[in-house]
Amino acid sequence: MEKKYLPAVQSPSDLKNIPEEQLPDLAQEIRETLIETLSVNGGHLASNLGAVELTIALHRVFDSPKDSIVWDVGHQSYVHKMLTGRYDRFTTIRQPGGLSGFTRITESEHDKFNSGHSSTALSAAYGLAQANRIKKNDAYAVAVVGDGAFTGGMVYEALNNAGRSDCRLLVILNDNEMSISQNVGALARYFAVMRANPRYVKFKAGTERFLMHIPLVGKPLAKAVYNLKTNIKNMIYNSTMFEDLGFRYIGPIDGHNIEQLCTAMEAAKSMNIPVVLHINTTKGKGFEQAEKSPDIFHGISRFDPVTGEPPASGENFSSCFGSFLVQAAAKDKRVCAVTAAMAVGTGLNNFSQKYPERFFDAGIAEEHAATFCSGLAKGGMLPVFAVYSSFLQRSYDQIVHDAAMQNLKMVFAIDRAGFVGEDGMSHQGIFDAAFLNTIPDVTVYSPACYKELNNSLVNAFYHSDGVTAVRYPRGKEPVLPDDFTPSFESFDYYGDENAEVLLVTYGRIFANAANAVRKLKNEVPCAVLKLNRIKPIDAKAIEIATSKKYVLFFEEGQQHGGISETFALRLLEKGFNGLYRSVAVEDDFPIHDTVQAQLAKYRLDTDGMIKTVQEVTGCG
Amino acid sequence: MEKKYLPAVQSPSDLKNIPEEQLPDLAQEIRETLIETLSVNGGHLASNLGAVELTIALHRVFDSPKDSIVWDVGHQSYVHKMLTGRYDRFTTIRQPGGLSGFTRITESEHDKFNSGHSSTALSAAYGLAQANRIKKNDAYAVAVVGDGAFTGGMVYEALNNAGRSDCRLLVILNDNEMSISQNVGALARYFAVMRANPRYVKFKAGTERFLMHIPLVGKPLAKAVYNLKTNIKNMIYNSTMFEDLGFRYIGPIDGHNIEQLCTAMEAAKSMNIPVVLHINTTKGKGFEQAEKSPDIFHGISRFDPVTGEPPASGENFSSCFGSFLVQAAAKDKRVCAVTAAMAVGTGLNNFSQKYPERFFDAGIAEEHAATFCSGLAKGGMLPVFAVYSSFLQRSYDQIVHDAAMQNLKMVFAIDRAGFVGEDGMSHQGIFDAAFLNTIPDVTVYSPACYKELNNSLVNAFYHSDGVTAVRYPRGKEPVLPDDFTPSFESFDYYGDENAEVLLVTYGRIFANAANAVRKLKNEVPCAVLKLNRIKPIDAKAIEIATSKKYVLFFEEGQQHGGISETFALRLLEKGFNGLYRSVAVEDDFPIHDTVQAQLAKYRLDTDGMIKTVQEVTGCG
Repeated sequence: MEKKYLPAVQSPSDLKNIPEEQLPDLAQEIRETLIETLSVNGGHLASNLGAVELTIALHRVFDSPKDSIVWDVGHQSYVHKMLTGRYDRFTTIRQPGGLSGFTRITESEHDKFNSGHSSTALSAAYGLAQANRIKKNDAYAVAVVGDGAFTGGMVYEALNNAGRSDCRLLVILNDNEMSISQNVGALARYFAVMRANPRYVKFKAGTERFLMHIPLVGKPLAKAVYNLKTNIKNMIYNSTMFEDLGFRYIGPIDGHNIEQLCTAMEAAKSMNIPVVLHINTTKGKGFEQAEKSPDIFHGISRFDPVTGEPPASGENFSSCFGSFLVQAAAKDKRVCAVTAAMAVGTGLNNFSQKYPERFFDAGIAEEHAATFCSGLAKGGMLPVFAVYSSFLQRSYDQIVHDAAMQNLKMVFAIDRAGFVGEDGMSHQGIFDAAFLNTIPDVTVYSPACYKELNNSLVNAFYHSDGVTAVRYPRGKEPVLPDDFTPSFESFDYYGDENAEVLLVTYGRIFANAANAVRKLKNEVPCAVLKLNRIKPIDAKAIEIATSKKYVLFFEEGQQHGGISETFALRLLEKGFNGLYRSVAVEDDFPIHDTVQAQLAKYRLDTDGMIKTVQEVTGCG
Repeated sequence: MEKKYLPAVQSPSDLKNIPEEQLPDLAQEIRETLIETLSVNGGHLASNLGAVELTIALHRVFDSPKDSIVWDVGHQSYVHKMLTGRYDRFTTIRQPGGLSGFTRITESEHDKFNSGHSSTALSAAYGLAQANRIKKNDAYAVAVVGDGAFTGGMVYEALNNAGRSDCRLLVILNDNEMSISQNVGALARYFAVMRANPRYVKFKAGTERFLMHIPLVGKPLAKAVYNLKTNIKNMIYNSTMFEDLGFRYIGPIDGHNIEQLCTAMEAAKSMNIPVVLHINTTKGKGFEQAEKSPDIFHGISRFDPVTGEPPASGENFSSCFGSFLVQAAAKDKRVCAVTAAMAVGTGLNNFSQKYPERFFDAGIAEEHAATFCSGLAKGGMLPVFAVYSSFLQRSYDQIVHDAAMQNLKMVFAIDRAGFVGEDGMSHQGIFDAAFLNTIPDVTVYSPACYKELNNSLVNAFYHSDGVTAVRYPRGKEPVLPDDFTPSFESFDYYGDENAEVLLVTYGRIFANAANAVRKLKNEVPCAVLKLNRIKPIDAKAIEIATSKKYVLFFEEGQQHGGISETFALRLLEKGFNGLYRSVAVEDDFPIHDTVQAQLAKYRLDTDGMIKTVQEVTGCG
């Protein structure tokens, strides 16, 4: 549809010039744009629909980029992108070469801080605010933080640190959980009135009892999530936490009323001290539009509310993991499943419904989740932490200190290992192999197909001591050669036994290596050494490689600290004197693109592998 | 002094048999034992003196090991060790081959969970409590958490997750900060009475104003710490946080009154739901004893209150770093110093006094601290995060996601890199080189002496882009050979230019390598390639090594993912066909011992290096 206002907004100052009474029309255009674009590109529709008025108000009241607006997680920054000179490129969002689905400092001066992982914005904004204070300028730093991020501990670390500081810092708590906000809305408004009274007296019993009587959705998963959010909500609505931590508190106010938002922000701005502004928004606000054109919006309504991803259709690595776990739990009463707010994405829906007693959603709290699993393990359970590779980075110390150091029997089911495509930089699963490699007594499997995933999980559960990780990519299994049958040993050998050229690899890109071998068959006889267990590496695998003339290691992950370097050391110590190459992500952060393009960029697709073989051997 | 009660306590059941009226005498004997032993061995005296009655009460009321007692950080677990069958070995605490200074599951069935790093106990105890619930046994899980740990975000993650769960879980908040607890004691008692009244009404303004008027110690450092703790205290004393999060709250009560403690714990036990028991204790309780024998207790009173370490005497790596930073800050207004509750240990005292405006104590919150530094950097400051190697493990994701991915200009000053001696397993600085190795665009220096430290810091500040880490060991610089003059380049070559045997190393153990070379002079001509910058490795260094017949890499850190593996890959890709060995910590967690013994164990002392050279070359 033709837009009247939006194309004219090239910068926040253009936005400031729009008369107030026309802002609802602008908001409407923004919503239409979101729906039009995301119905094609995919992305986080609901959270952005909920942030339309908030973003307009922010850019009316604050002066970006002088004032810093830091978006937590960043998936709700699409409107911000539209209003800061990127409307004309908005159709490219999450597309190869297009706008990122998160804030990126390289994309615009209005993106003050990269985002992707949760609960970081307040720490960053506090740093920016302190820098302003030291430089004696009067700029403001604003952190926009969703209620979900308050299940992550960093938020409290930052609140505690920033409270009572002499900073121009505003924290906007964007309270947008549909399932609860409507219920407590009335009470929240009541509290808003109460708080406006300088001599208000707080009756603590109120909210708690109120919340206790909200009829619950029957499903266990909903209940688990509900409980988690309820605790946070209770604390936010019911306690003086923010004031106690040294913030001025304003709210809760209607996050879809631009006028109220602007008034509250102006009030916060005038205080020159740390302020929390608590707003209520509705995820997917304005979504009723979809009723008129159900065909366009069909896909969108099915997005994962946390990740924005459509739910898995058909079989994939996540669903295979989920099926395995349900079966394992039926036979083994010790099996527990833990997730950090990613139950749907990691394939735990069925488990959560069948075994609610043994299902735990820890919140966006990977640190706690890993240590909690260690506690379960010490208590005799067999916990599985199902987590995305990128988010497991948060648990590094806990894996070292609480899991591995005590050699506790537990399993990490690492989803989204390897390139993830559109989410890009902050979500790539290219560190887990390397950082797990540094941790003693950890065993790591990297299956290439569903059958191997299943077998790796059996090994992890019943044929492995201590901490065992099984890592697998997003999406579906690759097509493996017909003549390949997994041995389910710690490695497989595929191809000519006497080949002088050996491609070493693990995980899904084995498919590419196998393809390369077949395509090169008449040119250069090659074989593939496929590692199934990447830590520790089987000594026999090293022995086989030692006898080869060319050993080329292809790794879908960081080279530094990764498996190809460990392999190199072992080869060298065994006296290997052939030619070795490591092809991996070499000290780089890959941007968003298709997975296929990412593999091609780092020469990890079939063509890249063929090219490397040809270059190294001088053939072809 | 002869002990009457303590030797007879071989287990918690012996303790339960002691008549109540004799418990104060037992407490007295425990205090004497603590003072006698720690005046010789060193250790965390004050926190253990503060936990005497608490520990007695815990083992009277609960039934360890059936009930789980999880000590956060664990430095206050000495009394627990005495009362659980380890009194006869207590003189060995922190000694080679003796008891650990922290809880260790391998040491006793009463040590339910390893400790060392802060803020983990509640997550672990919640896991144990859930395991009990699933197994349908009636055992209790108790987490003992100090107030300092409440500056760490994991505590909130766990509180949020555990609240309103159907678990037998007790959290003991051991509120032991001397500087504040006495001041708010009166108010706290007032609140305790208030809370006992089921219809109590809370007036929020009270505490805040009360706390505002406590006369402050003049020193800026004290003030910074004070502010940080005040926020937490305010929240704990003044809000209904715990109840809101779904815990029953009891307290605050006198943590030195065994009877009251037992009554409160019994009450908590009878509830069968998550309970927070808030107790006030005094660090160093009973320390007035020291007045009678000042000679014995002189040293003890000077321990670092956080680490239990004596303050640095004379020059050491930490003080050199501190001096550099003060000078740098004088010239460069952008320089900011950030610590995670380790201002004294990391040598920042002077900085905090001279530049309070640019000094930040983030609390025990390494995650937040790293992202906060990233915010400061984005705001145009030049932040330095001074942190112990072992604790930086907590920031892995933040270094990846917030610092390196944005290529922000900031410095990590990594203290206690390498073996740390008596603190042992949980505090070894043997992971930082490896985990930083996995992160793109991070530069890492590893100086061997003060002059090199200084030069590395200059490089980090003014000749390096993005994130730069400078890592250095605990304590003093080693004695380097007279004929060695640092070049301050990215590597140094020491010894015979034509030597066929090359020892490659970095950091303080260069001294050992140099010694080995000198001792082997007439036997096997060797040289040392000393890496000053360990990431990225200089291509010229690789080139030099490629021409050698034997290359032996000695690394005071994890082998897997570490620098010796990266070096091996580079050598191999350059066509090296000599003999390579990596001598490092190979997939192992070193226990507490002297640093010298730890180096010897992993063959990183002079003798070990000589032996390796002799074995590999067949000479000697």
